[in-house]
Amino acid sequence: MDVIAVESAVLMKIVPGSHMECPSNFDMKVRRWVVYFLAISILFILWKLTIIQTDVEKLQFLKDTLYLNKEQLQLSHQQLILIEHLYQAKLGKEQPMIYAITPTYSRYVQKAELTRISQTLALVPNVHWILVEDSDEKTDLVRNLVADSNLLVTHLSIKTPVYEKLGDEDPRWLKHRGVEQRNLALKWLRENLQHGKDKGVVYFMDDDNTYSVKLFKEIAKVKKVGVWPVGLVGGLNAETLILDPNTGKVTGYRSGWKADRKFAIDMAGFAINLDLILAKSQAAFSYRMEKGFQESEFLSYFTTKEELEPLADNCTKVYVWHTRTEKPNVKGVVPGLEV
Amino acid sequence: MDVIAVESAVLMKIVPGSHMECPSNFDMKVRRWVVYFLAISILFILWKLTIIQTDVEKLQFLKDTLYLNKEQLQLSHQQLILIEHLYQAKLGKEQPMIYAITPTYSRYVQKAELTRISQTLALVPNVHWILVEDSDEKTDLVRNLVADSNLLVTHLSIKTPVYEKLGDEDPRWLKHRGVEQRNLALKWLRENLQHGKDKGVVYFMDDDNTYSVKLFKEIAKVKKVGVWPVGLVGGLNAETLILDPNTGKVTGYRSGWKADRKFAIDMAGFAINLDLILAKSQAAFSYRMEKGFQESEFLSYFTTKEELEPLADNCTKVYVWHTRTEKPNVKGVVPGLEV
Repeated sequence: MDVIAVESAVLMKIVPGSHMECPSNFDMKVRRWVVYFLAISILFILWKLTIIQTDVEKLQFLKDTLYLNKEQLQLSHQQLILIEHLYQAKLGKEQPMIYAITPTYSRYVQKAELTRISQTLALVPNVHWILVEDSDEKTDLVRNLVADSNLLVTHLSIKTPVYEKLGDEDPRWLKHRGVEQRNLALKWLRENLQHGKDKGVVYFMDDDNTYSVKLFKEIAKVKKVGVWPVGLVGGLNAETLILDPNTGKVTGYRSGWKADRKFAIDMAGFAINLDLILAKSQAAFSYRMEKGFQESEFLSYFTTKEELEPLADNCTKVYVWHTRTEKPNVKGVVPGLEV
Repeated sequence: MDVIAVESAVLMKIVPGSHMECPSNFDMKVRRWVVYFLAISILFILWKLTIIQTDVEKLQFLKDTLYLNKEQLQLSHQQLILIEHLYQAKLGKEQPMIYAITPTYSRYVQKAELTRISQTLALVPNVHWILVEDSDEKTDLVRNLVADSNLLVTHLSIKTPVYEKLGDEDPRWLKHRGVEQRNLALKWLRENLQHGKDKGVVYFMDDDNTYSVKLFKEIAKVKKVGVWPVGLVGGLNAETLILDPNTGKVTGYRSGWKADRKFAIDMAGFAINLDLILAKSQAAFSYRMEKGFQESEFLSYFTTKEELEPLADNCTKVYVWHTRTEKPNVKGVVPGLEV
């Protein structure tokens, strides 16, 4: 471009000059040389222009490259959005939060049981674990387990009164268990979540049952109160719901014990929408409830048998088992190991 | 650009013409018009040049956009590499394959137990589950569970001879369990993997124990034979290894039963490198081994006490528990449910 600029400067000096002066004063020789010079200059300029035009046309490849890059960028961007989407789905931003309330108490198998439960929950993207210890203060064992779990956990503790506590040799059914702990979790929900704003489903999850990850997909569907079969409970292979084959509504219960209860459903066999839990703020468990009637009386706050939502493929699939772990016979303790 | 092309054609016709003719014959008027024409042409060319220059300057934005796009592409590329890296880590391409051998048998809690185990394995990227049923043929229950698990599974079956089978009321220690199933899994490894080519670690994983995902990080470290504590076994809170505080080598065992065995280690407390399993092709379990000596005799094929590799933070952490699930008291069966 420098050469052209110089050429232009020379031409500008000569041409306006030749225009201002009277042509009759021109010396013929000088005029001839000026015309020659101008003609050659114009040819040179035309040649330069052609080259520049070619160069500019070559720059067209830039445009093509830009379009190619733009397309690649859009593709990459779409891929990233998809991956982000997948991750978000994994993070459960699109699914209602499941508030899993787990009472737990200190015993030899506690860490093993909580390890199993926390590893099951690690496969559920949209879960908030409310873990309530039966103790005056949170223990280091549970605190460490919570820290290691990488789960969204609210860790609480409240001690069951001594007179309500099950003795070591007592049968499981003798006393209510988990009353204080479940109620503290309900209190936490009502104090920390807003009715109408926070969305979710509340599920009572014992630390010794066995839960398939498939169960949590069902829980996420609960509109008011969802129900499903529970395996290995009440002396049956499974307790389940009896559905009307025409309407698909719950008409009764196959339960090993007092199937005539208003809701003959194990604690592991139902989940309640957070809206209801927050709206019915008086609903809680109580020592005054008859033994074995905790679930039935608690559910009575929220729903009727007719309103129950049968899940798990119309109650034909078992996704939770009422497993019980043997109490190990520990006769000696190796010191310095957290078991 | 078409206008310029036409102009050029006109100039080329006139200017060479003016060069060929003798200047002395020029009519002043014609000369004046030629000069005017040349001057206008030059002005026109200058105007065109300015436009072209402006156009070229405008192309600068192309360069800027290209740089911006390039940076974005590099960023996207880095993100994709990171994601690929994360996925590869998740797929376990960077870790040795862990061959987890699990004997299982039909009982009420089988599906619950296998559900728990499969969900634990779902958190381990680099695991190949060799699941061997104690039955003549593979059952639908286990087949469905395997299909649902999304795990890398080799599903086999072999029936324990009736005379070696534990009766329903027999204590657990009365008979060897899992001999046929573990041996079939070892046979499968030796027939399907190549010594020197395939890399991995072999671990015997019962279907009722509790396994922390952390254990599998330890198993992946095994060079020859790795060992670690096992919780809730042998009447102790945990069986573990006694290490020399100076050398860190195994010097003995804290075991609830016959700690003087050559290897007083529970089946859940060791893993063996695949190289050794494939090299020592005669190593197997046997009914002829003394009760409680299966582990010790099997380990004797591969290593010595001094060679054992203490893992789990120098055997100070418990990542596996010898939990036992209560046999449920099933008095009635609801038909049509797979439990």
